[in-house]
Amino acid sequence: MKKHYVLLLLYAFSYTAIAQTIQGFSPESAQDQLALEAQFDAKLKKENLDDWMQFMAAEPHYVGTEYGKKNAEWMKKQFESWGYDAEIDEYQVLFPYPKLRLLELTEPTTFKAALAPEPIAEDKYTQQGEALLPSYNAFSTDGDVTAELVFVNYGVPKDYEELEKLGIDVKGKIVIAKYYGSWRGIKPKLAAEKGAIGCIIYSDPADDGYVQGDVYPEGAFKPETGVQRGSVMDMPLYPGDVLTPGYGATKNAKRLHRKDAPTITKIPVLPISYADAKPFLEALEGPVAPASWRGGLPVTYHIGPGPAKVHLKLAFDWQLQPAYNVIAKLKGATYPDEWVMRGNHHDAWVHGASDPVSGMVALMEEARAVGELAKAGKKPKRTIVYCAWDAEEPGLIGSTEWVEDHQDLLKEKAVVYINTDGNGRGFLGVGGSHTLETMVKEIAGDIKDPQTGVSLVERRAAAAKVSGRDSSFGLSALGSGSDYTPFIQHTGIPSLNLGFGGESSGGEYHTIFDSYTHYTRFKDPGFEYGVTLAKTAGHITLRMANADILPFELNAWYKTVSEYMDEVIETTNSMRKQAEKQQQLVAEKAYVLAADPKDNLKAPEAESDVPYLDFSPLQNALASVKVSVQEFSKTDFTSLSASKQKMVNAKLKDLEKALLSDSGLPRRPWFKHQIYAPGFYTGYGVKTLPGVREAIEQKNFKEAQEQIEKLAKTFTTFKSKLDELVKMG
Amino acid sequence: MKKHYVLLLLYAFSYTAIAQTIQGFSPESAQDQLALEAQFDAKLKKENLDDWMQFMAAEPHYVGTEYGKKNAEWMKKQFESWGYDAEIDEYQVLFPYPKLRLLELTEPTTFKAALAPEPIAEDKYTQQGEALLPSYNAFSTDGDVTAELVFVNYGVPKDYEELEKLGIDVKGKIVIAKYYGSWRGIKPKLAAEKGAIGCIIYSDPADDGYVQGDVYPEGAFKPETGVQRGSVMDMPLYPGDVLTPGYGATKNAKRLHRKDAPTITKIPVLPISYADAKPFLEALEGPVAPASWRGGLPVTYHIGPGPAKVHLKLAFDWQLQPAYNVIAKLKGATYPDEWVMRGNHHDAWVHGASDPVSGMVALMEEARAVGELAKAGKKPKRTIVYCAWDAEEPGLIGSTEWVEDHQDLLKEKAVVYINTDGNGRGFLGVGGSHTLETMVKEIAGDIKDPQTGVSLVERRAAAAKVSGRDSSFGLSALGSGSDYTPFIQHTGIPSLNLGFGGESSGGEYHTIFDSYTHYTRFKDPGFEYGVTLAKTAGHITLRMANADILPFELNAWYKTVSEYMDEVIETTNSMRKQAEKQQQLVAEKAYVLAADPKDNLKAPEAESDVPYLDFSPLQNALASVKVSVQEFSKTDFTSLSASKQKMVNAKLKDLEKALLSDSGLPRRPWFKHQIYAPGFYTGYGVKTLPGVREAIEQKNFKEAQEQIEKLAKTFTTFKSKLDELVKMG
Repeated sequence: MKKHYVLLLLYAFSYTAIAQTIQGFSPESAQDQLALEAQFDAKLKKENLDDWMQFMAAEPHYVGTEYGKKNAEWMKKQFESWGYDAEIDEYQVLFPYPKLRLLELTEPTTFKAALAPEPIAEDKYTQQGEALLPSYNAFSTDGDVTAELVFVNYGVPKDYEELEKLGIDVKGKIVIAKYYGSWRGIKPKLAAEKGAIGCIIYSDPADDGYVQGDVYPEGAFKPETGVQRGSVMDMPLYPGDVLTPGYGATKNAKRLHRKDAPTITKIPVLPISYADAKPFLEALEGPVAPASWRGGLPVTYHIGPGPAKVHLKLAFDWQLQPAYNVIAKLKGATYPDEWVMRGNHHDAWVHGASDPVSGMVALMEEARAVGELAKAGKKPKRTIVYCAWDAEEPGLIGSTEWVEDHQDLLKEKAVVYINTDGNGRGFLGVGGSHTLETMVKEIAGDIKDPQTGVSLVERRAAAAKVSGRDSSFGLSALGSGSDYTPFIQHTGIPSLNLGFGGESSGGEYHTIFDSYTHYTRFKDPGFEYGVTLAKTAGHITLRMANADILPFELNAWYKTVSEYMDEVIETTNSMRKQAEKQQQLVAEKAYVLAADPKDNLKAPEAESDVPYLDFSPLQNALASVKVSVQEFSKTDFTSLSASKQKMVNAKLKDLEKALLSDSGLPRRPWFKHQIYAPGFYTGYGVKTLPGVREAIEQKNFKEAQEQIEKLAKTFTTFKSKLDELVKMG
Repeated sequence: MKKHYVLLLLYAFSYTAIAQTIQGFSPESAQDQLALEAQFDAKLKKENLDDWMQFMAAEPHYVGTEYGKKNAEWMKKQFESWGYDAEIDEYQVLFPYPKLRLLELTEPTTFKAALAPEPIAEDKYTQQGEALLPSYNAFSTDGDVTAELVFVNYGVPKDYEELEKLGIDVKGKIVIAKYYGSWRGIKPKLAAEKGAIGCIIYSDPADDGYVQGDVYPEGAFKPETGVQRGSVMDMPLYPGDVLTPGYGATKNAKRLHRKDAPTITKIPVLPISYADAKPFLEALEGPVAPASWRGGLPVTYHIGPGPAKVHLKLAFDWQLQPAYNVIAKLKGATYPDEWVMRGNHHDAWVHGASDPVSGMVALMEEARAVGELAKAGKKPKRTIVYCAWDAEEPGLIGSTEWVEDHQDLLKEKAVVYINTDGNGRGFLGVGGSHTLETMVKEIAGDIKDPQTGVSLVERRAAAAKVSGRDSSFGLSALGSGSDYTPFIQHTGIPSLNLGFGGESSGGEYHTIFDSYTHYTRFKDPGFEYGVTLAKTAGHITLRMANADILPFELNAWYKTVSEYMDEVIETTNSMRKQAEKQQQLVAEKAYVLAADPKDNLKAPEAESDVPYLDFSPLQNALASVKVSVQEFSKTDFTSLSASKQKMVNAKLKDLEKALLSDSGLPRRPWFKHQIYAPGFYTGYGVKTLPGVREAIEQKNFKEAQEQIEKLAKTFTTFKSKLDELVKMG
């Protein structure tokens, strides 16, 4: 009796497995694949993540450090031990080290910023003294400036609009901005555009200090001397080595003169702690900052300018440093020339337990399990390439140089790039090419959340429902901020970026407090989410590697892109309504009458008209894409012969590239993708349909119309690629 | 030539004057009235307001002080000198004086609250030492309690819902709540209902301290030792003397025993400064407070309970004190038995330059000008009664006792009550009976804002437009918080409450910093808005006094009341949708899945169903009122004979009383008005259609249905009164 039961159960299970269809697999291949993934899962060990993090995050390992090199060499050996062909690809990249940092208040009182974090007794890693990289913003220019201070909130465009209303000009001043509200590099960029001569960025306790929760070591948040390091390179122009735009920073590459490098800031910029910021803010007078600008320090936030006067002097050691990318390949059995690429960076600002080591060790554990499967005869169909990037922190340099240096190879071989970075406890977040949404959803629907036991999709949906958001599973669009950028934005390789978070917030980001001690207390104790990341990214990697037909699905893509188009049209209409309303209010003098005369506000001028744009080329192009998408979706490519499948895959691989434009985006040709780009004034934050959208937002309506037509042509090309595929079905 | 021009201009002007129609006046009377108002305006002098404020706010003058008595006697003489019959009506009211105040932290560290404000060198009034009333909450019960502390945000119902989610119970604890978010008396009332044994209220710097602006004396906001005094009497049950509910607190009135007085708090409660609050908040552990709960102190706001343990000991001197109401009458020439009543309180917590003296001196200047006009032969048609109330601060006691003591007289004679209180720079705010909206709008449309030169209506509309609010002129509904309450809520006298504000915010309210020095620097320098208040309230008083037909207009009333009904129906529907959604989320376990397991949140239980109520009796009743309103509006009563006008006026006077119910609101029979009441759990905040609305909000749907039918009957009675009027037209 007993045996019969077991057999029945087995039948039931295999029946279930057969019934499950997965994108890109024939029913038979699907069964094999799901069994393989179960074997993969069984191999993952949390202990490895823990051990490896202790090793990799033991000492600071920013670009050019001995410990960074040691990590790279150690990883190479690890990959090799798991059966990979591994190599270290080295680039020579410009990396400024802070030689001199001086920030002082000279009027109306004097104060010299300490610029020194206090070590934590309970955390040995914070006690490494001079080995800890001094806090600074990489790719700030050298400078020595003295001027009155102005508080500019987060230093983003709408803050300058507010300053204009108040009649406050930052020309010739030094600005002090809070971290957050945008990627940090926007702050000095915009300040310089507005005429400021220096920029201070500080971490307000309202954003990641005591207002958010107990500070380290009692809790996860930023203590008063903590400083967020970070790059301020103008990455929205181009990321990577500042001296070699568009090509690899190989040893003998032709380099720009540093003074001609457009992505180094125009003005000196320095990040400071809230302990250091307080005396500067206290010394400001002038209007009280608007309510939404005020932070968590026990002061009245004034805007200035002055009477606070500031002296900022910065000098950097501008050296070429070696960046070590570790590239580990596992050759595919069927399609060795189709590469599934999977990467995470390994360099950190200091120890980087969370950023990037938590993601890096998950990648390694995934690679180990994949390697073991291969050793046991379960080789992937496609070649899998694991990458550990160096020099991500100063500006996605390691990955960008490698991608620029391997353009032809990548265009020929890469079918996908899957990125991870820092990881924590919480909910799955995934961004990427929307052709991959269906596959990711299938995978996330099968993996269990370690805390609740429901699937990753279900848990995410529950949170969305409770907070009243759309609970359907979707990929966010990719802007920038990690190593997927050169793959998707510059090269058109379909990309994903994933990680867990939302229950592991803290103030350790880019500080000396991002240590193993902090990580294991507050970010992901027990590495439960680390191993879940390995599982999720591993399934994606394996599915991309083994699919009969590359699992790109076009309905989700079409739906999302149509929504982007509708958004852009809606934005234009609401900008028009807004301008008309504002013009009316100006004509009625409503702003003047509503204002407190004591505030001496500048009466606003009437906004310019927002014309009606001709969106029809875009609408028609997308309508015709829809027809092709429907045809494509009806076609079952997995039942084709192997040789036909190979031809289909070869074409599918290039589909995303049809969304690039050779000339790139206006004023930043490096960014070639026509659907996704980081915002010119948001930095990491994405702008979808960027050519059209940013032209509209900047009220450059002539350019907007040109970009509409350009984008329509892109969609028409995309349609023709789809039609070619349909014909092959 | 020249002369002809002047004549032409005169014709043009008089034509304009004739063309202006005003509610309640025949075209001829309107012309006379507008001329009279121009004469009235010409008499107003800012200097008087300044002089009188210096006198009245020279020393603390809370109930029972010598200086309060002196003010009353001085005002009486002033009124008499302007031609009024003035008298002081005295009541004997219970007024607790703080005898013992002890608040200390006993665990895990110790700290004793200083409970002492620091005097300001630049403000002599703050240096009066023991004359300054110690900070306390009047009508806190005596008590001596020791318990763990819990931070409850503002201590309003939704905060306790949040605590329940967190699994935190305040039973047997002492709570600490921030000021604001509701009327202060709600905080100890609700805390006691939830089982707490003591309550501390403090002023967080985020609400009126350094977060809002520079603190006194640099700016207008609350310094760290400032404490807001105030009554915590359970006024939503009944205001006025706690021992004589519903009747006058005359010398020999029968009084409740103090222990039976239901409006004294059930638990001891003490207000403190943020300097005193900080050590208590710092000593709390437990969950970090939700983001919206956190204030502006440089601490991580934890909820507790404990480990902070608190000892609170309070004892009061419970004495009967004399309250002196000054009542000044100017007899009407045509309708001496129709009283236009106009009041402001004169007692303060300390000096009360802003609250109430700024309003009181505006009233006096208005009375002086009206008196002068009368002396010059321009007597009002109706009797004008100016009132200066005592004992408003501890609980609207002076006015309530007087109104309760003069019920029959008031019901016979009072046609309107016009209230003012503290006044400042900014925008006109008016609340009141919606039958008066049209008249107020006419007046506010003719008076110029002193800073911009446009009308009060225009300036207010400009501010509304800029902030995207409805810019039409409307009266807000009256809840409670000043002396109109016994008139409108208890007696059904049509009432108004008006004042200026919005550009004079500060942290001085009910503190020792509400001084002449503070007022003239920050609230209304030059008394520009003081004199504008005298003008606005004066025009209302004079128009009510001289109208041929009492200027009640029913279209605005009908529109507003219909909106209230629609709101109540909409509230029920959205509560139902909300409950259904919540039930669905509970069934799906969405709350559990979305929560961070480390937070150990209590899984919410499914809400109870919201049934469909039968609103048709209300809808039908209001539909039939509409017909009568239309008929009423078509009728021109001003062309009737004098004798008929008199009859119409007599009926109009009683119209608002048709909106009362003898039995009052459920569980608080003192509140008889069926359209407006202060909320049972908001305190000052109004609830319109209160019987129906509060039953729905409290999910007492049986009572809601009863109240719908009761209200429908009220409207039917109101309709019959209107119909009687129409027949007289």
